Amino acid sequence: MKNLYFIGVGLIGGSLAKDIKEHNPDVVIHGISRKDATLEQALSLGLIDKKATLDDIQHADLVVVSIPVDATVKLLPTILDKVSDNGLVIDAGSTKQDICKAVENHPKRRNFLAAHPIAGTEHSGPSAAINGLFKGKTNIICEVEKTAFKLQENALDIFKTLGMRIRYMNPEAHDKHIAYVSHLSHISSFMLGKTVIEKEKNERDIFDMAGSGFASTVRLAKSSPEMWTPIFKQNKTNVIETLEEYINNLSQFKELMKQDDFEAIFDEMKNTNHIKDILKGIS
Amino acid sequence: MKNLYFIGVGLIGGSLAKDIKEHNPDVVIHGISRKDATLEQALSLGLIDKKATLDDIQHADLVVVSIPVDATVKLLPTILDKVSDNGLVIDAGSTKQDICKAVENHPKRRNFLAAHPIAGTEHSGPSAAINGLFKGKTNIICEVEKTAFKLQENALDIFKTLGMRIRYMNPEAHDKHIAYVSHLSHISSFMLGKTVIEKEKNERDIFDMAGSGFASTVRLAKSSPEMWTPIFKQNKTNVIETLEEYINNLSQFKELMKQDDFEAIFDEMKNTNHIKDILKGIS
Repeated sequence: MKNLYFIGVGLIGGSLAKDIKEHNPDVVIHGISRKDATLEQALSLGLIDKKATLDDIQHADLVVVSIPVDATVKLLPTILDKVSDNGLVIDAGSTKQDICKAVENHPKRRNFLAAHPIAGTEHSGPSAAINGLFKGKTNIICEVEKTAFKLQENALDIFKTLGMRIRYMNPEAHDKHIAYVSHLSHISSFMLGKTVIEKEKNERDIFDMAGSGFASTVRLAKSSPEMWTPIFKQNKTNVIETLEEYINNLSQFKELMKQDDFEAIFDEMKNTNHIKDILKGIS
Repeated sequence: MKNLYFIGVGLIGGSLAKDIKEHNPDVVIHGISRKDATLEQALSLGLIDKKATLDDIQHADLVVVSIPVDATVKLLPTILDKVSDNGLVIDAGSTKQDICKAVENHPKRRNFLAAHPIAGTEHSGPSAAINGLFKGKTNIICEVEKTAFKLQENALDIFKTLGMRIRYMNPEAHDKHIAYVSHLSHISSFMLGKTVIEKEKNERDIFDMAGSGFASTVRLAKSSPEMWTPIFKQNKTNVIETLEEYINNLSQFKELMKQDDFEAIFDEMKNTNHIKDILKGIS
């Protein structure tokens, strides 16, 4: 692999580019973005070696697509149109069904690998890119059987270099499960932030009282609406299901409080403490 | 100050003891707990110098009470009965109304300072005690005017040593505000953990997909039910109010999704991104 093209050079694309370049100093990292200012920033941060456009990706050994998932759905067929027979295209989107569907009948479907590296922070843009973001993290690969064998190998080499562990899953299962462990967390955090901010309008000093617990719980409310709106849109059915279950659990907790059933409240929390064991190993 | 008595030697009491001892090596830290095993653990961890009982606190220059808030309400009158005229009693509970009320007419009310250091982690017990937990954190003091002036001074000296910034507030305002920035976060986190664990019963691999975002949002669900049940009980009215607002916001978000109003979804998140500025300075 020599010529790598990154469509999207923000938190995910930029961090991938940094790690790959570190392990393979000989590769040339080309950056593609709608906004020239973003590319200039990526250049000055050393995330990319050169600016490029979509027409250049005929020369790509690898194309990494990490842009909002609605943009991926729109652009992916064009990317596959342009890529050479030996070019590998990998996406990093947080949804997989719509993305896989967008290219299911594309003549170059075998050049595409659908991936979701479960890594990130609440920050976004080129300045958010960091080394080692993917080390020890899970990478979900969907419909691996639809990707050319040689290109699968290339992809796995890269993921190995980054230190990722691989899980294979179909797009439906991915979208259903990720709604619980990622998408719902974002909404719970955004709405917690909203609830407290609304209150703050009248009560000025409220945030003076906020501690590290609040900061941790509300951290994801800093996330990019540009990235997350299309994720919720594409995974609408699953996300609504998780939201309904979450709201039901909160309502039930509230009812137990209203009924002064604090034994049940205690049990609810005790049972959920089990999350300690589950979270071991997730940093 | 020479003889310090800590009733409760867990995360909060133990961490306070560690810091005070570090800054004043000459003090003698006495530990009091219902369970001898806890005291033995605190001794072996070096959190306390000696084991003691309630009858010993007649000799106390300072008594720090950091036990579940229902136990504080029950025990505080007895503690004040036993303390000498020059002894200062400070609590560290996450509720303030019921605690202040429990001693409002006590003849030694002036020996008591109601405090809430906003610091902690999701861990509990003596082994959770750490140095520097309170540095740069807020300490809410309630009804300061009811504490003897000389004892106020002693307390402020200690808080200064620990590096805390002080905020004065009445118990009603404390309990109302803290419901938003602390109590609600705990419930949102516990119920998020519950929602995902319930799902996991049928879907084994779901946690393999959890990343750092989920871990952060659900961190508080590791908290101690023994500490938190009485907090929710004492602050029932305020907590129910915050829960209702939170559930309303979540339900509204869900409705927007059902109506495919993703512009509004975007705006909700964009507006809440404002939390970035608010959280600056909270680690």
